[in-house]
Amino acid sequence: MLKLTDFISAYNRIKNNINHTPLEESLYFSNAEHTVYLKLENQQKTKSFKIRGALNKISILTDEEKQRGVLAVSSGNHGIAVSYAAKLMNIKKTIIFVPKVTPEVKINKIKANGAKVIIAGDNYDEMQAIGMKYLAEHNMTFVDPYNKDYDVYAGQGTISLEILLENPNIDTLLVPVSGGGLVTGVGIAAKLMKPDIKVIGIQTSACPAFVKSFHENVFYPEYPIKPSICEALMGGVGEEPYKLAHQSMDEVIEVSEASISKATEIAIKNEKIILEPSSAVGLAALLEKPQVITGKNIAIVISGGNINDDFLSFNLK
Amino acid sequence: MLKLTDFISAYNRIKNNINHTPLEESLYFSNAEHTVYLKLENQQKTKSFKIRGALNKISILTDEEKQRGVLAVSSGNHGIAVSYAAKLMNIKKTIIFVPKVTPEVKINKIKANGAKVIIAGDNYDEMQAIGMKYLAEHNMTFVDPYNKDYDVYAGQGTISLEILLENPNIDTLLVPVSGGGLVTGVGIAAKLMKPDIKVIGIQTSACPAFVKSFHENVFYPEYPIKPSICEALMGGVGEEPYKLAHQSMDEVIEVSEASISKATEIAIKNEKIILEPSSAVGLAALLEKPQVITGKNIAIVISGGNINDDFLSFNLK
Repeated sequence: MLKLTDFISAYNRIKNNINHTPLEESLYFSNAEHTVYLKLENQQKTKSFKIRGALNKISILTDEEKQRGVLAVSSGNHGIAVSYAAKLMNIKKTIIFVPKVTPEVKINKIKANGAKVIIAGDNYDEMQAIGMKYLAEHNMTFVDPYNKDYDVYAGQGTISLEILLENPNIDTLLVPVSGGGLVTGVGIAAKLMKPDIKVIGIQTSACPAFVKSFHENVFYPEYPIKPSICEALMGGVGEEPYKLAHQSMDEVIEVSEASISKATEIAIKNEKIILEPSSAVGLAALLEKPQVITGKNIAIVISGGNINDDFLSFNLK
Repeated sequence: MLKLTDFISAYNRIKNNINHTPLEESLYFSNAEHTVYLKLENQQKTKSFKIRGALNKISILTDEEKQRGVLAVSSGNHGIAVSYAAKLMNIKKTIIFVPKVTPEVKINKIKANGAKVIIAGDNYDEMQAIGMKYLAEHNMTFVDPYNKDYDVYAGQGTISLEILLENPNIDTLLVPVSGGGLVTGVGIAAKLMKPDIKVIGIQTSACPAFVKSFHENVFYPEYPIKPSICEALMGGVGEEPYKLAHQSMDEVIEVSEASISKATEIAIKNEKIILEPSSAVGLAALLEKPQVITGKNIAIVISGGNINDDFLSFNLK
């Protein structure tokens, strides 16, 4: 059971090593009915919220656990965040398993943080199986991005502390959802501070696992995926996030890939911020399903900024 | 004469209303010889460092001066910053003069801050003349972006406080230069804190007014301009920045428009930040004139993020 003091303790553990990211009013998305604020975790250290959970988890390891080292499996932001947090905490042995398709630029970032990268498996599931076998044999600490780690959720939930301490009038939170690690922390922390706040989770319709789990009350740890620009949102539901879903969220909705693409472009051109398409789902929801979002003061978590290079091109004179 | 306490006082006046922007290590621009850090003022409130000087200036007005109101002439970031700072300070009468060519999106931002916009003059010089005439007739406070206002320089110099308090090992600062308001504050503050720090001002070769003034010891308040992607860097040298140039800087160099264009693209694609081409001149200097920049720990001021929409296009799948 997560208490408000768990989030406050997490915040005190990590605050000197993370960016206090801006909560920026959006002129473009605000209108006569509502004011929209963007919580810019794309400007966080490692360009993603993942550092919050990873750093909180690693901060509370015992000296002996720190010596045995940490391990993560990830094809993206979580791996970079764990390696960065481990470096901050002076952990000498950090291993990140990545699948074969991982771009070299991500592997280089992990290596630059002093971690060992093991490339294994043709896809995420294969890679995870190999990583878990290694973990069992080597007695390291696993940093779980979403499935069941309350210390990770507590770290992610510090986003809500920052939002509501800066603007207690926020009445609605829009949060990207994949396995549910982010929304579990953010939603529960927000509701502990302000019980009547509305928390809406957003998924891509290319993989609406959590939408189905939430409405059918069926646990979908795996789920089929369609082609998507939201690589960070592919996959099934986490075990604890599923159990806590009606505590963390009021609603989970899906938005189309077309809306996400449009929202990404609008955000980059009008808000002048770089964000991943996976992080634009909250903005896409405002475009596609405004009737669902009835709040007056809406905060949208912009979860990360590691957009694929190929998505951007230039037209300088 | 600016003292270190002037900058510290300015910082205490403005710090609760500005973003403490990240000083981010750049993996791409760092190498075996040096580590490069980016001071991300493109992530500042109003997406530009200008808010620092404007807010410091307006904060110290007397109640009577506040009641009489503030006036600025600007085609860009300074006008937005002054209107934002005036709103924060509850000033009811704010007038921003802008030239006829000003994009509507910028005018709307100024209006959204509650300021009155007066569109006047076919170019900056004509507009400024009209604004100055209005100022003389209406007894308001002029917020001068660069020519001679030590309170504005003190505000801009808080950037150096943040940089050197976060990383005292920085030995070199690269700063974009136009009229010199930014570099006067940043350079003098940095040298008061760390006398042996090297401060290098950077201009575009499309308008190297300060390069010429610095090396020829001739004051060029006006200077011919060539076509440029750096609209914020067009124009002559400020009066006090000229007098203080050898106190604020060790060197002023120019870089080509081609290097600036390349640096802008690299920064957006590799650092995943949106910056104006005018703000990429420091990165361009690293690409074009690495032999001039011999430091081990180099901080580059990325001064603003209000890039022209037309410069960006997309390639989402």
